[in-house]
Amino acid sequence: MANSSITAAQGFEAAGISCGIKQSGHLDLGLISCPTGAMAAAVFTTNRITSPAVDVCRDHAGGSGRVKAVIANSGNANACTGRSGRKDALAMCRETALHLDGQTEEVLPASTGIIGKPLPMSKVRQGIGVAARTLSPSAKAGLQFARAIMTTDTRPKQAVRRFTVSGRDITVAGTIKGAGMIGPNMATTLCFLTTDLAMHQSLLGRALRTAVGASLNKLTVDGHQSTNDTAILLASGLAGNRASTAQQPAYRCFVAALVSLCDDLTRQMALDAEGATRMFKVVVTGAASQREAARGARAVAGYDLVKCAVHGADPNWGRILCAIGSAGVQLRLDRLTCKLDKLTVFRRGGPCKFDIKEARRIISRKEHTIFIELGVGSHRDFCYGVDLSEEYVAINADYHT
Amino acid sequence: MANSSITAAQGFEAAGISCGIKQSGHLDLGLISCPTGAMAAAVFTTNRITSPAVDVCRDHAGGSGRVKAVIANSGNANACTGRSGRKDALAMCRETALHLDGQTEEVLPASTGIIGKPLPMSKVRQGIGVAARTLSPSAKAGLQFARAIMTTDTRPKQAVRRFTVSGRDITVAGTIKGAGMIGPNMATTLCFLTTDLAMHQSLLGRALRTAVGASLNKLTVDGHQSTNDTAILLASGLAGNRASTAQQPAYRCFVAALVSLCDDLTRQMALDAEGATRMFKVVVTGAASQREAARGARAVAGYDLVKCAVHGADPNWGRILCAIGSAGVQLRLDRLTCKLDKLTVFRRGGPCKFDIKEARRIISRKEHTIFIELGVGSHRDFCYGVDLSEEYVAINADYHT
Repeated sequence: MANSSITAAQGFEAAGISCGIKQSGHLDLGLISCPTGAMAAAVFTTNRITSPAVDVCRDHAGGSGRVKAVIANSGNANACTGRSGRKDALAMCRETALHLDGQTEEVLPASTGIIGKPLPMSKVRQGIGVAARTLSPSAKAGLQFARAIMTTDTRPKQAVRRFTVSGRDITVAGTIKGAGMIGPNMATTLCFLTTDLAMHQSLLGRALRTAVGASLNKLTVDGHQSTNDTAILLASGLAGNRASTAQQPAYRCFVAALVSLCDDLTRQMALDAEGATRMFKVVVTGAASQREAARGARAVAGYDLVKCAVHGADPNWGRILCAIGSAGVQLRLDRLTCKLDKLTVFRRGGPCKFDIKEARRIISRKEHTIFIELGVGSHRDFCYGVDLSEEYVAINADYHT
Repeated sequence: MANSSITAAQGFEAAGISCGIKQSGHLDLGLISCPTGAMAAAVFTTNRITSPAVDVCRDHAGGSGRVKAVIANSGNANACTGRSGRKDALAMCRETALHLDGQTEEVLPASTGIIGKPLPMSKVRQGIGVAARTLSPSAKAGLQFARAIMTTDTRPKQAVRRFTVSGRDITVAGTIKGAGMIGPNMATTLCFLTTDLAMHQSLLGRALRTAVGASLNKLTVDGHQSTNDTAILLASGLAGNRASTAQQPAYRCFVAALVSLCDDLTRQMALDAEGATRMFKVVVTGAASQREAARGARAVAGYDLVKCAVHGADPNWGRILCAIGSAGVQLRLDRLTCKLDKLTVFRRGGPCKFDIKEARRIISRKEHTIFIELGVGSHRDFCYGVDLSEEYVAINADYHT
């Protein structure tokens, strides 16, 4: 079977081990290495309180852009940990660099998990040594990395896209972790992407922002963004293509592949969101502007009462209207139309007769689409949402202790 | 026992009956009458999709300001009902006026309940007749009205304030219904306030806006605002005081009483919010502006992960910091401090040692306060929130059918 993990792209090795951060003994430390060096681009949470891991990662990715490794842990976010936090984030990089014959600045750190507890650094240090020794380009090693970044996720998430440019086979691969605290500003938590494409750093960053904007940022699980959200894209350049400009086919193909890959990862994350049993897509059309279309879609996808109704497979379209009405977007009630997949439930300002059983069938699917026509313009956008279940509450009422 | 219902103020009669809108047979139609006529002020939802009841109420309250009655139903919001909606809202007023020897324009309508179903008008018409015949100034009649506006509320909510101005005894009374779809923009659903004070219409409106802004708009249950939110204040003038200016003591005493009354109703509503087992107050200090203080408090009070943690009595202060960090307000992490009542859990950018059991005891109370010092300015504001429970989801996953 073809490798569908982050080691699928040429030049990358990975490892995922348990170093003892998680009391459960589950994997909690992951390492990606690119011995020949990779160009890096990264985007981060917009939360004003950021983990030192984010601060250090931003510093290191913002340098020459050339990196050798990513070191990531789960089970502890190293956030709000006071002065020791930055020291620990830097120590993770230093320790990793030591084992890989690189510089501290060539390592990007990422952390996820509980906020406010110092990292158990002796365990982490020891773990980094073990991870470095078990690095491998195998699919299994890539999968171990995907497992090592999980928190409340119930399964690892991986995806790969392949395309050809000027006779060169290019691979783009990625892994992501969910599963709560996901808002549409950087709905990423931690996301790691690798490719063997050669590309200038500025274009790499542009491609990453485009892909994240079109996929990860289109999902709201609970409207929250964490202190640690990070998406990193590493390009080894080993495919041997000539670095292209933004106008050339290589760049366009790459962006298309990256968007498709990130959309895939986003949907995997949505379907594994905390307590979620199904997901839905909200498409808003006829908006006065692109911004209003996006805002309207996001408001409906994040509206607790809509999310509860989806959980109950209840075609309560009144709540959809209520949500769009309070989204602060222009609309004309006499032109407002709402559909569940192809089933019209509200047409031009009035309720319509529809088959309730059919509506329930549609909502009961793993995925369905809510269409809302605002009747004031020609702009459209979408947002993904997930249902809100009793389990979400149960998971989050007792996470800390 | 003193009358603590909306009939406590001189000049008001009330009734609450079952006319058959609710299949359960519970009370679903309420009437307040002021035979001598009352000055009215009202504030409404800012949802762009409004019930025709809101539209008609706004028209009628915006006329001379002189009204004779309020007719309110629960079990059906008369929202998104197409063209028949406005006709039905007007018919409710006409029918009420007929029985009370008034004009259609002198009646304010209000509706709450399911969206998208036409009102069963023959039942409503018949019910209005019954309600008009059972009007009474008794405390029991006032309580029946309070019961008749309930939807998912588990108990009626009433409050009264009394004060004396220039030898005149003034009463202000109110009732409110919750219990879901409550966001800080008009967190009111339906709220009815009566007083025997005499006051000019413009001042009455100003007093109402002040009181709603300081109380009802400071509560978020689920961040939602309905299509039907309405708060109505009626002043009979029978206390016989001379209508005052905004500078005179009568007005200031009235506003203070009204704020206190509305705060009381708001807290009753919070403690009876859908699935809520406890409430909390978020106080933000040291903000760069009043607006940022309010925004920060609201963001924390409405943050699902904080609400879940409160439900689990889990002192997970990391989520509080995460919420304030993503609220889009200025803060300095090195000055950021967080307290649960008097217990400091995070001080000037670093976690502190605190008694976990004591923290759990604080959160387990019916009400506690989360203090957040941002360290950038001198402004403060607050917001009330409630815990998010499995029951909230259960209630809202199957409300429609």
